[in-house]
Amino acid sequence: MTVMKTPLPAVVDVPVALAGRQYVIHVGPGLLDQLGERVAALRPTSIVVVTDPTVAALYLERAVRSLQPVARTEHFVLPASEAAKDLAAAAKVVDALVAARADRRSLLVALGGGVVGDIAGFAAAIFMRGIRFVQVPTTLLAQVDSSVGGKTGVNHAAGKNLIGAFHQPGMVLADTSLLHSLPAREVSAGLAEVVKHGLLADADYFAQVEGLMPRLLECDDAALGPVVARSCAIKAGVVGRDERESGERALLNLGHTFGHAIEAMSGYGRWLHGEAVGCGLCLAADLSRRMDLIDSGDLQRIEHAVASARLPVRIPGFERGRAIEQMRGDKKSEGGRMRFIVLERIGRAAQRLVPDAVLDATLVAGGYV
Amino acid sequence: MTVMKTPLPAVVDVPVALAGRQYVIHVGPGLLDQLGERVAALRPTSIVVVTDPTVAALYLERAVRSLQPVARTEHFVLPASEAAKDLAAAAKVVDALVAARADRRSLLVALGGGVVGDIAGFAAAIFMRGIRFVQVPTTLLAQVDSSVGGKTGVNHAAGKNLIGAFHQPGMVLADTSLLHSLPAREVSAGLAEVVKHGLLADADYFAQVEGLMPRLLECDDAALGPVVARSCAIKAGVVGRDERESGERALLNLGHTFGHAIEAMSGYGRWLHGEAVGCGLCLAADLSRRMDLIDSGDLQRIEHAVASARLPVRIPGFERGRAIEQMRGDKKSEGGRMRFIVLERIGRAAQRLVPDAVLDATLVAGGYV
Repeated sequence: MTVMKTPLPAVVDVPVALAGRQYVIHVGPGLLDQLGERVAALRPTSIVVVTDPTVAALYLERAVRSLQPVARTEHFVLPASEAAKDLAAAAKVVDALVAARADRRSLLVALGGGVVGDIAGFAAAIFMRGIRFVQVPTTLLAQVDSSVGGKTGVNHAAGKNLIGAFHQPGMVLADTSLLHSLPAREVSAGLAEVVKHGLLADADYFAQVEGLMPRLLECDDAALGPVVARSCAIKAGVVGRDERESGERALLNLGHTFGHAIEAMSGYGRWLHGEAVGCGLCLAADLSRRMDLIDSGDLQRIEHAVASARLPVRIPGFERGRAIEQMRGDKKSEGGRMRFIVLERIGRAAQRLVPDAVLDATLVAGGYV
Repeated sequence: MTVMKTPLPAVVDVPVALAGRQYVIHVGPGLLDQLGERVAALRPTSIVVVTDPTVAALYLERAVRSLQPVARTEHFVLPASEAAKDLAAAAKVVDALVAARADRRSLLVALGGGVVGDIAGFAAAIFMRGIRFVQVPTTLLAQVDSSVGGKTGVNHAAGKNLIGAFHQPGMVLADTSLLHSLPAREVSAGLAEVVKHGLLADADYFAQVEGLMPRLLECDDAALGPVVARSCAIKAGVVGRDERESGERALLNLGHTFGHAIEAMSGYGRWLHGEAVGCGLCLAADLSRRMDLIDSGDLQRIEHAVASARLPVRIPGFERGRAIEQMRGDKKSEGGRMRFIVLERIGRAAQRLVPDAVLDATLVAGGYV
């Protein structure tokens, strides 16, 4: 039998060192067909691919074909949606691992977006007290966000991601060419996190993203590769310096206090997480300007970047009182001031207590009633 | 208000260092009434005590009374049995944490035997990706075995403890006076692990346990204290040198390959785990003698220790073929030989490949047909 070898594309490797473990995020086009070659070194006894119906139709066959020479490969298609991301879904993945006769040396491959990664990663964390898993994120959001940090988990009626575990993947394959099939709206949603990474940590990167925006929206592999890699490296740097979220990691929540409130107030599903975060970044920038940290030129530049990613700069009409109440639930209020992540300049974020009057002015400017 | 201070009993502290974390097992009589004082340093925002109906009737009120001055204290009584130790039970504990408005800084107190510790510890591991928990083991088995190692988990239809996590407690309070209410049969079952610890790691300790046996069976605090502490220290030493079970930790399975087969063949519940292990220790000793590692004097001494703990030395009548098949499922067979934990002498265990003929002879001698 002749084995066709896929030529190696340009791949950027991002090392991540967390919880005393080290793994690599491989970033580049066409990596899916190298999945088997790349996981072979893990010497799994068997492999179970977990995916969702949409991704299964597009990429499951290629994944399984690549993996089969390495070890017996089974698969499980999970009906994945944020609404179905619960303990019962994780239990189904565990059942699938049992049915596939998985053991401690088996490998779970999570092929899909954030929901698949969260559920399958959590199942890998709790099956036999933790088996290895490899992530093949198929959305831009999952490639730049969920690839780093080891957060896995499911929702509970009382809150999102209330049940979960920290479980680092053995490897991440971020194949940028998988994003060609991603709906434009989800590409934009992923770009919200990319813009955020530039804003909170790296002014040069922010400028680079501004320039690349049209090509990123078209999912040009040559533009996506370095951006996915740089975003992962920024997140890995922040998380590596603060694994359990006591300090610096909170900076990754730039725009998220506003974003979470928008998602909650509009009902989950109305706006994508990335869309709410895009708007949240603009509100956080407005807050930063009102606190004299950045100037109005910076604010306009940030709003322009968000708009050019085809994300909403303003989502008007929410009630201010309700928004503040929502955000108080998300954050701790300290004597009439809430703690927010603000920008000290483009490329540097910090936690600050924000007076209620300043917050109110930002909400008014954002079209809140 | 006058606060009655309980006088400090003689407490032995056993330090455990695992997974980069350090905690202490406090061992001594009367510790339950110091629970609050001792967890105060953890500064929990709130406390949830998880227990079972039997233990609740005996000790819940004392636990809650001690904890209430530290933080708002809620409790949840779990119908705990090995048969009900499943994911649904862990989910109920999570629901109870939600109902008690627990947050990341809350503390879960597992007050009970191994089943409560396993379920509640697992719930603590997955709630908000891990909150702190303190174990107050109320059985001898839980005090000498579950206190060390950080293993938490629940059963799956396909296997015991198939779902779980490694999650180290913040502290363990092994109050030996709680054992006064323990049925005699469960005291004996706990002593099986005590005998095992002496056999695998410390000949002097084994001799000490032989001498103390009548007082241990009567739950004499002055005898139990040093024994619980020494057993915990032995297990902590072994586990600390091999946290993820690649090598030395396997030695803790002395007698367990036989024990698990006995439990499975007789139907779970017929024999307590410790009873099956007691018999398993005798079979492992017989195997060791047939391999010329120990002499028949050692074997008799081991059988006498097991018998004096009121544990079964022989459980005759099982079919050899079925037993071997059962043990093959538990272990990997390597070319007609199975790997067992055997004794090189009293006080030192090792892994060895055992020829099938030797295993067969041991089973015949053990009354297997």
